[in-house]
This record gives sequence, C-alpha cells and structure tokens, in this order.
Amino acid sequence: MTDERSRRPSEGSRVEAFSDGVFSIAITLLVLELAIPALRGGFETQLVDEWVSYIAYLAAFATIGVLWMGHHTIFSRIRAVDPGLLWRNLVLLLTVSVVPFPTAVIASSFRVGTERDQAAAVVSYGVVGMASGVAWLLLFSYLRGHKRLLDPDTDIHFFRLTEPLITLVGYGASALIGWFVSPPVALLIFLVFPVLYVLRVRSADW
Amino acid sequence: MTDERSRRPSEGSRVEAFSDGVFSIAITLLVLELAIPALRGGFETQLVDEWVSYIAYLAAFATIGVLWMGHHTIFSRIRAVDPGLLWRNLVLLLTVSVVPFPTAVIASSFRVGTERDQAAAVVSYGVVGMASGVAWLLLFSYLRGHKRLLDPDTDIHFFRLTEPLITLVGYGASALIGWFVSPPVALLIFLVFPVLYVLRVRSADW
Amino acid sequence: MTDERSRRPSEGSRVEAFSDGVFSIAITLLVLELAIPALRGGFETQLVDEWVSYIAYLAAFATIGVLWMGHHTIFSRIRAVDPGLLWRNLVLLLTVSVVPFPTAVIASSFRVGTERDQAAAVVSYGVVGMASGVAWLLLFSYLRGHKRLLDPDTDIHFFRLTEPLITLVGYGASALIGWFVSPPVALLIFLVFPVLYVLRVRSADW
Amino acid sequence: MTDERSRRPSEGSRVEAFSDGVFSIAITLLVLELAIPALRGGFETQLVDEWVSYIAYLAAFATIGVLWMGHHTIFSRIRAVDPGLLWRNLVLLLTVSVVPFPTAVIASSFRVGTERDQAAAVVSYGVVGMASGVAWLLLFSYLRGHKRLLDPDTDIHFFRLTEPLITLVGYGASALIGWFVSPPVALLIFLVFPVLYVLRVRSADW
Repeated sequence: MTDERSRRPSEGSRVEAFSDGVFSIAITLLVLELAIPALRGGFETQLVDEWVSYIAYLAAFATIGVLWMGHHTIFSRIRAVDPGLLWRNLVLLLTVSVVPFPTAVIASSFRVGTERDQAAAVVSYGVVGMASGVAWLLLFSYLRGHKRLLDPDTDIHFFRLTEPLITLVGYGASALIGWFVSPPVALLIFLVFPVLYVLRVRSADW
Repeated sequence: MTDERSRRPSEGSRVEAFSDGVFSIAITLLVLELAIPALRGGFETQLVDEWVSYIAYLAAFATIGVLWMGHHTIFSRIRAVDPGLLWRNLVLLLTVSVVPFPTAVIASSFRVGTERDQAAAVVSYGVVGMASGVAWLLLFSYLRGHKRLLDPDTDIHFFRLTEPLITLVGYGASALIGWFVSPPVALLIFLVFPVLYVLRVRSADW
Repeated sequence: MTDERSRRPSEGSRVEAFSDGVFSIAITLLVLELAIPALRGGFETQLVDEWVSYIAYLAAFATIGVLWMGHHTIFSRIRAVDPGLLWRNLVLLLTVSVVPFPTAVIASSFRVGTERDQAAAVVSYGVVGMASGVAWLLLFSYLRGHKRLLDPDTDIHFFRLTEPLITLVGYGASALIGWFVSPPVALLIFLVFPVLYVLRVRSADW
Repeated sequence: MTDERSRRPSEGSRVEAFSDGVFSIAITLLVLELAIPALRGGFETQLVDEWVSYIAYLAAFATIGVLWMGHHTIFSRIRAVDPGLLWRNLVLLLTVSVVPFPTAVIASSFRVGTERDQAAAVVSYGVVGMASGVAWLLLFSYLRGHKRLLDPDTDIHFFRLTEPLITLVGYGASALIGWFVSPPVALLIFLVFPVLYVLRVRSADW
C-alpha cells in the first residue's frame, strides 16, 4: 500500500479531483439560470431589469467559490481517505451542487413572483446554506475523531466546529429575516457572507 | 515506455481524470432537472410539492456517488490501461452519464403523469441500473483475465462478479416491483441501494 | 525551465487536464438532449418511440469516447507544448464540444421533422465529423514538423495522415449518403465508425 | 509544509485543476446556446440561417480558449498560492464562466431582435470583456506585489499591465462601436480579438 502510494498520486488527490469537478461545474452551471431575452424589442430594458438575478448569481458564485477555498484548505491537511470520509465528502458536495437550484428559484421569484414567492425562494436558499453547515459539521467531527487521516503536523484546532456552526446559524437567521422581514435584505446577506469569509481568511494565518 | 512513466503521471491517471470528469458532471447536472417555479404565486407550495423530485435527485446523486467510490477503489488497483479496458470503462461511463435522464423522467412522471407513467419512469431508471450492472460485469471479467493491468499485490477476489450481479438483479427486481406493485416503493429502493452500499463498504476491509 | 518541470507536473499535463475536461463535459452534456416526456399519459410509448434519439446518443457518445482515446494516445507521446500546438488542440476541442449540437438536431429531426429535415440533420453531423478530421490533420501535420515536442523514442509514422484523412472522407461520404440515399443509413454509419475504430485499435499494437 | 509539498502535488496544482474545470465547462456549455430546430420542415434553412449564432459561438469559444492559454501561461510561473491570489483568481473565473450568457443574448438578438436589441446584446458581451480585463489587471497587480508567489526566475515584466489594459480598452471600444455604429461589426471584432492574441503569442518568445 505504501508502495503503491509512492508510485501514484495519493488517494486524496483523486477525491480532490472529483470534488474540484463538482465545485467547478456547479459554479459554472449557475450561468444557465440567467434569463436570455427571447422576444423582439426591449432587450436593453430586460437585461437591466434582471439585476436581481445578477446579484443572486454573484452571491451563489461567491458562495461556491469560498466553499471551494475552504475545501481546498481542509484537504491540503488530509493525507489519506477512508469510506467514512468519502461519503461525508459526498454529502458536502451534494449541498454544493444543489446551489444552482435555489439560486434559480430566487431569480425566478424576483422576475415573476409575489413578495411571498420571494420569501419562499430566499428560504429555500437559506435551507441549502444550513445543509451546507451541517455537512461541514459532519466532516469536521469525523476528521477530529480520525487524526490518522490528517497530516501529522496538523493542529486539530484547525477543525474547530465553531465555523460550520456559524454558517448553520447564519443561514438559518437569514432565512428567518427573508421570511419575516424582507427577501431583498436576506439576498444581500447571502452576498455579504462569502465576502466576510474572504476578509476573515485574509486576516487569519495562512 | 518505463522511462516515460517515470516522467509523467501514469496512463491510468488520465483515465481516472476523464472518468472523474464524467462522474462529477453527471452528478452535478442532476440539479438541472429540478423544476423551477415560473408562475406568479404559490412558489412555497410548488417547492414543497416537488418532494418526489428531491427524493429522485437524492437517489440519483447517491447512486452516482457510490459508483464513483467503486470506480475509485477499482482504479486504485490498476497500474496500466489498454484499449480493451478503455472501451469497457467508456461503457461504464455511458451508464453513469445517462442517469440524469431516467431521474428527470421520474420527476416529470410524479409531477404530471399517471401511475402508469410513473411505472414506466421507474422501469427506465431500473433499466439504466441494470445496464450499470452489466458494465461492471464486463469490466470485472476483463480485469480478472488481464492481471498484468493490476498492481501485483492485488487480490483477484477483489474483482469477484457477485457484486455487479447483485446490482443487476437488484435493479431488475426493483423495476418489476415498480411496474407490477408500486412506483413509489421502487423509488425508495433506488434511494436505499446506495445507502446499503456505503454501510457495507464501511464494515468491509478498506 | 527544466528545473520547474521537475518540480511540477509537465506543461502537457495541464493541456491534458483541460482537454479531458472538455471531452468529459461534451460526452456528459449529450444526455440533456434526450427528450423528457412532460405530458400526462403515454410516458411508456414516448420512451420507446424515442429509440432514434438513443441511437444518436450512443453514436455521439461512442464518437467522443474514441476521440478521447485517440487524444489520450497522441498526448502520451507529447512531452512539451507550444502556442502552435495549443491553438490546434483548441480547434480539435471545438469540433468535439460542438458534437452535442448536431446530435440534438438529429434527435429533433426524427422526432418532429420530415425526411428532408432528417437529411439536413445527418448532413450537419457529417460536417462536424469532417471538421474533426481536418482538426486532426492540422494537429498531426504540426507534430510531424515539430518533433522536439514529442518523446524522443516516438515513431513519426505514428502520426501518419492517413487516419484523419479516412475520417474526413468517411464523414463526407456518410453525409452524401444521408442526403441522397437515406438518413437512417447515415445514422447507422455514425454508430459503426467508433466501433470500427475500437476494433482496429485492439488489433493494432498498443 | 515543505515536507507536505514534496509528498503531494503543489497547492498551485489544485487551483489550476479547479480553474481548468471552470474554463473547460464554460467553453463546452456554449454549445447549449445553439438553437435546435424543433418544428416540422425547414431544418435545412434554419440551420443555415443560424450563421450569426455560429459566429458568436466561435468568438466566445476562441475567447475562452485564449483566456485559458493566458491562464495556463501565468500559472506556470506561480509556485504558491495565498487567499489574496485565490479570490482574485475567482473573480477572473467569474468573468470566464459568465461568457455563455452574453453569447446567448447575441445569438437570440440576431435571431429574433431589432437592431437595437442586437446593439444591447453586443454591449453586454463587451461589458463582460471589460470585466475580464479588470480581473486580469487585479491579478497582475497582485502578482507584481507578491513576488514570493512566483518562481524565482520569473521576469516581472512578464506581468506588465499593458496587456489587460488593452483588453479593457479594446472591449470598451467594441461595445461603443456596437452601440453607435453597427452590431455586426462589433461581433466580428469579438471574433478577431482572440485570433490576434494567438498570432501575437506565436511571434512572442515562449
């Protein structure tokens, strides 16, 4: 086994390759949800009026982008994989690859829907965000309990559960704000979350 | 040739990269089949009513996920590829990349169809599952007969034909159940299959 | 430069990765062209009646699959890339990634069109096949004239122009047959081509 | 850390893999925007009449292709990544993955729209091109200020800001031409840009 590992890329590499595929496809598929004007006349107005779709697109793109950054950071500390890690990673990828769906629902709700439709749409996005938080919790807990999968010099505090818990609570709170207060405010929060993440990472050790 | 191999990733690597691409795309394309509410009002109800689509999505996601886990496990034992292996791998990828089709048919049948439509839909999914079983049979038989493609320390019992046979029979039986008994029951079985696989793998040696 | 190459995957690797991405996406996107029944009743009949779409799908899948096999074989002989090779490779990838279009046109023509529509559709597929032949000609000619990009032990006869010429003529002839004789016959030829390629490769040295 | 790097592909590799994924998916998704004839009769005419879509497709394909070539060239000089580079790379990928949208808008505008619709469409494409120029400016400025991320033997003049500035001005000027003079002329310029890039790269040192 050790022998094989020296001959070929590590097992972790292929999990990363598969995960990178899912991340990059999900992030690129988002563009398919932007509505293309199809009726003679008024392209100009339609393209401008679609600005909420663009914000939803940006929020989703940035979210998947920082999720990838997080995944990249985690897996650079992993030196081996086992089935338990693989299926938890699959659950995580599930929450990533489903993102284009609530994004499209948001875009559709601001294009044709009532305010209640918009509220339902941002709640669906919030639920996916919460699911993502749960998936990271699952992954982090597993890694904390299986240190042999990690590089020996990895600080276990790296996998503290605070961060996914904040994600979980943050998206839950945004969903509530979207439902009871204002859908556009929730949408803006979805855009701010990934920006905050990037700012925090930049100031943190790397 | 040996020289080239030391200079570049092994041939097997590129087959894995191409296969990873197909797996990750197929699994991510599934999201395009979820129906986005497009009419003013009732987003909330429509999003909830779509629960069968979500189950079909989960079943297909989990199925492609465990197929990838299986592929990953097999190819970590392969040290060289030849045309015979390549085209059998292509047949396998065909059965993977076609999965979004019956998944969408199931979702559509539960959204608009009669019970007979639903039955036809789950049968189409079952047929794809059976085709997958056949593809794994082809691949395993080939590897059993071409040990020089495998890592020297690979136990040939690793490629016993029982598992793909169980897949073949299992999906065949589910299709029959879907047709003669109940489409929803078949759908639930499609969701249970990958979960069973993960549970079995976890208890098995790794 | 030599130093860098020992530290990181060869330049060729990244071209392969990008190309693998295009091949695997194009081959997986084909599934989106299969028509999903959307009206209550008759799913069963519609799924069976779509058999021409399935044949077109199989033909396109097998074609992209063997094109990938060819690309894999060629690039395993390449040890360096330059801009001239990169853009010729891009032209080749163009002819690959456009394949889902004529495939969908064929499927649509057999679903709703007249025989003349079907003829036009198979001609469009044939034109893409001919473009692919031209792209391979461009690539092979370039490699024959730039041996420094190849592994030193590569036999230049490996890049003889006969094969892409046969592709070019073969797809041209099929298009003519589809236009003047019978569209279904041309469709069957499109399915047979990749099978012949696999048979020929198997008997050839590997 | 150094230890880890010798054991696994460099950090830069995974950024390249993710980026390659986005580039290859964006370039392949373009094909989905080509309109498939769906009404009985006249496939032949429709396929020919769609020639503007083909030009838009070629322009977008070539543009993403040369952007990939540029990305490939840049990242072959990068030996380490940090969060600041990662998010700038994400912004760059955003401008790449959004390309299929204005491309589809152009195709739609020439299929059904007025001349003003066409003008709006080419302006939307030009805006995306300008955004791409800005993203490259961000990336180049960052790399110029963080030489420790680069291979030691990299000439800093390699990252001179002239080139992204030309891109920015070029697409801005094309958008103005498209709006005030003629949309088809702007479309042709979009096709010429990537060709010029390839010609320039070929004559430049490699």
